[in-house]
Amino acid sequence: MNGAELVLKTAVLNGIDICFANAGTTEIPLVAALDGQAGIKTVLGLFEGVCTGAADGFGRVLDRPAMALLHLGPGFANGIACLHNARRAKAPVVNVIGEHASWHRDADPPLCMDIAAMVGAVSGWKRTCRSARGLSRDMAAVIAASSRGQVASLIIPNDHQWAECGGIPIVTASPSFEPVDHEVVDRAAKALKTGGRTAVVLGGRALRHEGLMTAARIRAATGCDLLANSFPGYMDRGGSLPVVTRIPYFPEPALELMTRYDAVVLAGAWEPVTFFGYEGVPSHVIPGGTMKIAIDGPGQDVNEALEALAGSVGRAKRMTAKGDSVAPGRSSLPAGPLTPETVSAVVAALQPEDGIVVDEGLTTTFPYYPLSHGRGPHGFMTIAGGAIGYGMPCSVGAALAAPARPVINIQADGSAMYTVQALWTMAREGLNVTTLLCNNGGYRIIAMELERAGLTDLGEAARALVDIDDPPIDWVHLSRGLGVSATRVDDARALAREMKRAMKEPGPHLIEMMIKSG
Amino acid sequence: MNGAELVLKTAVLNGIDICFANAGTTEIPLVAALDGQAGIKTVLGLFEGVCTGAADGFGRVLDRPAMALLHLGPGFANGIACLHNARRAKAPVVNVIGEHASWHRDADPPLCMDIAAMVGAVSGWKRTCRSARGLSRDMAAVIAASSRGQVASLIIPNDHQWAECGGIPIVTASPSFEPVDHEVVDRAAKALKTGGRTAVVLGGRALRHEGLMTAARIRAATGCDLLANSFPGYMDRGGSLPVVTRIPYFPEPALELMTRYDAVVLAGAWEPVTFFGYEGVPSHVIPGGTMKIAIDGPGQDVNEALEALAGSVGRAKRMTAKGDSVAPGRSSLPAGPLTPETVSAVVAALQPEDGIVVDEGLTTTFPYYPLSHGRGPHGFMTIAGGAIGYGMPCSVGAALAAPARPVINIQADGSAMYTVQALWTMAREGLNVTTLLCNNGGYRIIAMELERAGLTDLGEAARALVDIDDPPIDWVHLSRGLGVSATRVDDARALAREMKRAMKEPGPHLIEMMIKSG
Repeated sequence: MNGAELVLKTAVLNGIDICFANAGTTEIPLVAALDGQAGIKTVLGLFEGVCTGAADGFGRVLDRPAMALLHLGPGFANGIACLHNARRAKAPVVNVIGEHASWHRDADPPLCMDIAAMVGAVSGWKRTCRSARGLSRDMAAVIAASSRGQVASLIIPNDHQWAECGGIPIVTASPSFEPVDHEVVDRAAKALKTGGRTAVVLGGRALRHEGLMTAARIRAATGCDLLANSFPGYMDRGGSLPVVTRIPYFPEPALELMTRYDAVVLAGAWEPVTFFGYEGVPSHVIPGGTMKIAIDGPGQDVNEALEALAGSVGRAKRMTAKGDSVAPGRSSLPAGPLTPETVSAVVAALQPEDGIVVDEGLTTTFPYYPLSHGRGPHGFMTIAGGAIGYGMPCSVGAALAAPARPVINIQADGSAMYTVQALWTMAREGLNVTTLLCNNGGYRIIAMELERAGLTDLGEAARALVDIDDPPIDWVHLSRGLGVSATRVDDARALAREMKRAMKEPGPHLIEMMIKSG
Repeated sequence: MNGAELVLKTAVLNGIDICFANAGTTEIPLVAALDGQAGIKTVLGLFEGVCTGAADGFGRVLDRPAMALLHLGPGFANGIACLHNARRAKAPVVNVIGEHASWHRDADPPLCMDIAAMVGAVSGWKRTCRSARGLSRDMAAVIAASSRGQVASLIIPNDHQWAECGGIPIVTASPSFEPVDHEVVDRAAKALKTGGRTAVVLGGRALRHEGLMTAARIRAATGCDLLANSFPGYMDRGGSLPVVTRIPYFPEPALELMTRYDAVVLAGAWEPVTFFGYEGVPSHVIPGGTMKIAIDGPGQDVNEALEALAGSVGRAKRMTAKGDSVAPGRSSLPAGPLTPETVSAVVAALQPEDGIVVDEGLTTTFPYYPLSHGRGPHGFMTIAGGAIGYGMPCSVGAALAAPARPVINIQADGSAMYTVQALWTMAREGLNVTTLLCNNGGYRIIAMELERAGLTDLGEAARALVDIDDPPIDWVHLSRGLGVSATRVDDARALAREMKRAMKEPGPHLIEMMIKSG
């Protein structure tokens, strides 16, 4: 058994069953070992952003890590943007990066880079393997670290992958959490019960089914509002789950919302701040005078903290949950041109029971979230870290994580171009992903921000950085070139028809929606 | 005048006339300022690798920097792989990266990352702007630093871009080199004249016309061989220029070549080492006992050092240059299936006078370099740092740097997928680029390395990481989807016909070559 085989045996024994890879010469022993190792599926991405984005999507859906196998510094670098979103989504991801042989690195060969410096920018945990003897321990450690809901990265020099490792025991490591701080939880409980207006901001694991049901009990007992950051990583929604309000993207409505509260409890959420800094607007949207308590600290399990909070606030004062009076059932299908409103309404009406909606529609899907309150049970993902190009690779990972759950990816065109290679992996793996491509011919979100900054009359140079319709991108051609059947629609009825058809047929589909931005 | 306007005025005054950009909200003042600033052209890339790769190509061709304008940490991260090649090519590149407002960054907003850590992995010079007052000084400094042949990066917080900067003088900074060490040069001259077999390994600026003519004088005076690293960044070739031998990629022939020499002089070149570490093969291909002298140190001008060396070795002992007995004129056009040999022969025969050949053909173009000895004057680029996906963006930059010089990009399919978005910029700018897409349906270079490692009978998992033909990528569809007219050829005669046609018509073309790997 060589080092690479030891690494993979350790991976499988510690629960890794899929590897998203774009490997090269420094990972050859790992590539060869994948052939001999049962229990782990290998999926090729034609760009590393596809691999890391897919690992992100997989981790978000299943709450356990996939492995991304990446080639040296440039390969890792290509995966950074998607890993940044994974970090902000608190998704478990394991990166394994091949490095030059330890005795070769000092020669500074052409592909040599400071991998560790780049790894540090997105990883909550990182290590470079120092000897073949430590490989199993290191691999078990990187998986355990990721399982706390973070990106964890292990760099393995090529010579250690080749080294003879017979007789070295395979290590297993259970993910362990730090104990919850009950004093903090009790303070939070007290704050929620003072009678003022209160909110709990949920994030990470707290937005999964278990956490949401606990949060619903807390709400029933205290009357608090349930909120989430603007861009949650993964959220269970619909059915009997409580409705969660996302803190608005733009600072004014976000501030307006948060000033209502006398106390805000954070549970797995990031401290709510404005997405960008706007002159004269505070960074923190929870006002300075508001009581603010985070019930989970670093390395703690937010759902354990939430359960403790539910125990501490006591039983419900009333039986029905407040604010969930959303009519269930199918909303009506709109007609007319494709606008953010009609597109969002069609998706909300047709999204399949138990499906997963991957939202990178940006300006096109601003209306979608409230429109889909009260729908059947489904998963919901957003961009989390704001690095565009997450939607298509995350859909790949989601579809492989849950093959029985149809994936609907509402995908902005400018963002789609960043990781367009993901379409090929959808075709190769026959994934059940329907990509609703929002063709509005531009980076509309930047145009909105330009407008906010008072720049409405754009000159040639500014326009050249916002409009992407000269030449127009033909998404039907592009998609077919990568093996995914595609069609184009111009109005809401055609979208509904094609969306129904795509969901009925197996395998991936792309529907290019010609959006009127109005 | 605000900070952004000051930055751009400084850029133009210091010789920057093009900006490859994919900007976002943190760069809005710079986007707006581009509209008001004469003398600088803005070019949009639909992925940051296109922007940095184009800046690399521009810098390689003109030996002066373009500016890449990038959005925060994820935007910079997407550009790292192409910057890595620029670093290894010793190309001048100026990166300007927008950062959150300095007062907002501590709030850790979703897009916040440790940009400086990533910047350090590829930049020879880096700085974060600390105040608006320092903006012009910082911008002049980043340009001067890049002009020494390196990647230089400036991070500018958004509030400094907005700040009022009226009355702040605009700084100009001339690039300055460290003085050449004449003692070292004289030692090198002595080594070349001892009568043994000697070589000069040329790199960076030394491979441009001026350096090559100086090197030809040194060769005439000493009988030394002229070599280059396996993957030079940019090289002037053909016409009356001396033929330079590239050190082979694989270690055995590289070692065989280098053991011939009693002394090796390095002039702007990287110390020759094997591309990867192979067990039992030394990293350094110049044997330990061989005299080895580098005539240029950090920050020195290699062409000044080379000129000093030419002076020190004295006049030519004979009039004709040795080893350039390559028959000039047009080589014959082959027929038959498309193989590495026939493709290379067609390109060598048809490449236009004064054109630029961007070679990312990898396994398909191994035969091309020797076949193109003795052709007319042309520029030649290779992958330099080994990070795949450089060819198409570098072609964008080359075509904008030298609009009168036709660009021929021989492009491997697997690598092309990494930065496929570059096709759109070619279409948008109407660039004179002919992309010869080598469709061999796989990562053949990895298959070769697997074979070297003794892995010839690939299993399913290994094959899944090497073959990219299931589904096949339809490059004609893909290219048309991005606005570039495309055609497919199956044999050498059709390639010659379509290549002639493409070079005659203005604007970009893609020719998908169905390669028989044999």
